[in-house]
Amino acid sequence: MSEVLRVGIAGLGTVGAAVVGLLNAQAADLAARTGRKIAVTGVSARDAARDRGFDLSRVEWFKDPSDLARSEKIDLFVELIGGDEGAARASVEAALGAGKSVVTANKALLAKHGLQLARLAETHHAALAFEASVAGGIPIVKTLREGLAGNSIARVYGILNGTCNYILSRMELEGLSFAECLKDAQKLGYAEADPTFDIGGFDTAHKLAILAALAFGVKLDAEAISIEGIQDISLADLHAARELGYRIKLLGVAQRTPHGVEQRVHPTMVPLSSSIAQVMGVTNAVTVDADAVNELTLVGPGAGGLATASAVVADIADIARGIRSAPFGLPVEHLAPAEKSPMQRHEGGYYIRLSARNHIGAAAAIATRMAERGISLESIVQRRGCAADDSVVPVVLVTYATTEASVREALAAIVADGHIAEKPQVIRIERE
Amino acid sequence: MSEVLRVGIAGLGTVGAAVVGLLNAQAADLAARTGRKIAVTGVSARDAARDRGFDLSRVEWFKDPSDLARSEKIDLFVELIGGDEGAARASVEAALGAGKSVVTANKALLAKHGLQLARLAETHHAALAFEASVAGGIPIVKTLREGLAGNSIARVYGILNGTCNYILSRMELEGLSFAECLKDAQKLGYAEADPTFDIGGFDTAHKLAILAALAFGVKLDAEAISIEGIQDISLADLHAARELGYRIKLLGVAQRTPHGVEQRVHPTMVPLSSSIAQVMGVTNAVTVDADAVNELTLVGPGAGGLATASAVVADIADIARGIRSAPFGLPVEHLAPAEKSPMQRHEGGYYIRLSARNHIGAAAAIATRMAERGISLESIVQRRGCAADDSVVPVVLVTYATTEASVREALAAIVADGHIAEKPQVIRIERE
Repeated sequence: MSEVLRVGIAGLGTVGAAVVGLLNAQAADLAARTGRKIAVTGVSARDAARDRGFDLSRVEWFKDPSDLARSEKIDLFVELIGGDEGAARASVEAALGAGKSVVTANKALLAKHGLQLARLAETHHAALAFEASVAGGIPIVKTLREGLAGNSIARVYGILNGTCNYILSRMELEGLSFAECLKDAQKLGYAEADPTFDIGGFDTAHKLAILAALAFGVKLDAEAISIEGIQDISLADLHAARELGYRIKLLGVAQRTPHGVEQRVHPTMVPLSSSIAQVMGVTNAVTVDADAVNELTLVGPGAGGLATASAVVADIADIARGIRSAPFGLPVEHLAPAEKSPMQRHEGGYYIRLSARNHIGAAAAIATRMAERGISLESIVQRRGCAADDSVVPVVLVTYATTEASVREALAAIVADGHIAEKPQVIRIERE
Repeated sequence: MSEVLRVGIAGLGTVGAAVVGLLNAQAADLAARTGRKIAVTGVSARDAARDRGFDLSRVEWFKDPSDLARSEKIDLFVELIGGDEGAARASVEAALGAGKSVVTANKALLAKHGLQLARLAETHHAALAFEASVAGGIPIVKTLREGLAGNSIARVYGILNGTCNYILSRMELEGLSFAECLKDAQKLGYAEADPTFDIGGFDTAHKLAILAALAFGVKLDAEAISIEGIQDISLADLHAARELGYRIKLLGVAQRTPHGVEQRVHPTMVPLSSSIAQVMGVTNAVTVDADAVNELTLVGPGAGGLATASAVVADIADIARGIRSAPFGLPVEHLAPAEKSPMQRHEGGYYIRLSARNHIGAAAAIATRMAERGISLESIVQRRGCAADDSVVPVVLVTYATTEASVREALAAIVADGHIAEKPQVIRIERE
């Protein structure tokens, strides 16, 4: 183990350049910690000529990342290309197939092909490490795979998308609309020109699939996840949440239930006093509920070149030290199939905001429909409306634990009764 | 690596019993994750007859833990005896000397003999793991040793003693006195009959010495740490802190300065908006400031049998998997001597509460003395006194960054001027 660990890096964008920078800056310390020198010996990037602030003239350049991945001049392949097919997939498969360990930050690739890649890694006795793929600089992969090995995990949930948390934070704190905050997020580079992937919850779902595999030993399956985004959250909801002692966050939640592991992404009311409620702006956080450790929360940067590179370098150092774990903690053959978890079966508290027509008895009729489905109300607040003609009044209900099916049935009946003027807003409550 | 990992456990109190319980409960999962069966094959405890809720009749009992430590029937020795000398030290030395890996939760032993034990472990190619020794169930040792390997760390600080945090939290939230809260903590089993070790900051200092070694590569040296406890914190301070936008926590802080690594334990004002300020009750938290990851905070249970056992079992699983790191990240020969860091040299903001005699011009004279030492004041608040005769008025000063020496000199001058009626209260401010 005293020989040099030769690293090949494909993709020299913000993260790739930061990885090279950290490997240089920490070279002596990393050698002392791992007992080996770590050297970048090959790279592949679109533009070989661009000045990235460091000298790569003595490093071999590869046009095709798969050639780098297979090269006999590297021991470890770092994939920072991105995308769930194409060059990223081909090069990772090439590296693992050649028995070379792989470090990647590519959650989309893992969510789609993680199982197959883990199997390939096992077959060829190579490591496949991906700390950077979930929650950037937060070491949640290592914590679930190694740090909580003695625990049976009941639930893992987190703020896994900084863009959504930035938007919700600014809406609440500054009273701005969703559209305004999204525009600012795009200006600041937090959101893409097409923001659907972040805003719609799909990025969170990719990361959740990885966390669920690590926490519960279930096979990654993006199809098993129920996904709702934040596009319909209004200022009225954020303010009502606050009055009720909650804050709204886009959470990814994976939890053990009597029906299997439930995986869901949706806007969620969390108690204002919880650790996760304090997390504002682009910061990420993950909370794990487990039998031995009870509750553990990690808070840190979810994105950014340096934070992501920190996680990539930690993976490289682990591989240099000879640390080998099954990519998802358990060998692939031990992973159980993920159950689809239809939201209809979800049990929990609900926040429901209705625009009720200002009829005498509307609130009573609404409460009656809830009671008919066995739903107990923790609170019901009806305020004077703000419509010019006073014909519509906002009614906010908070339920005790019930099932999603009951809530949906009750709302369908309320709609059929003609008591409400707009589509009801439903937000699930996640208690500590 | 397919053979059974044979574990000997010395000490079967709350933590030891919980470790056996978790190893049993998670046996199949641990075997799948580590590729080996983990079996408890030997124990040593004072009372062999006591019913601990599990069957140890087929396990060999040892009267002397050192005999267990040296026994050919174990591969790994778990020390849960406690104390920094005697049976704990002797048995850990015996195990390492025999080339057996050691897992311990014993921060006092590590703070005093950690270096020598790490050297012994290196010499005999054994692992020495101690995740449970700092912040209970929070995986901060693994995070510093492995998860942040790519970072240069600037500061690590945390709430490392649940007893102190419980007392400060209850004082602030319920307006109770220090003495009342301490009594309750003793009733609930959070504090010992002699609470000096917790309240005086010594327990925090032991843990800080371990964190500083991991974060900065300095040799453990309890003598290098400046220590103040929470015994002099009054309700007046907690309320003044809140008004100023701070909360008071007992922190252990290790930070890189131009003079070397500064290590200190003292009551600290932290911004109310910081992650660490949200941590109430017996919960622990650690924040790491580092160049790549920026800020990372881990929050979780700092004590309790199960949470501590969670960390012990994670260490056992790492050793079963063959993970070997130098105990303190770097080999002992690479660790630098810890510099003493006299508080006089500390730089930062200060909160100062004075009981000023109600003379005309007292506040002006106080401010002048501060200005003479080049201390800039961020705020100065003088309120009407609550003494019956109005002869004394409370004055609260908050300074911009200055040195402890300047503050102490200014206060000595103010005392000599005869303007104040009681010993000044000084609390350091820690900014994010």
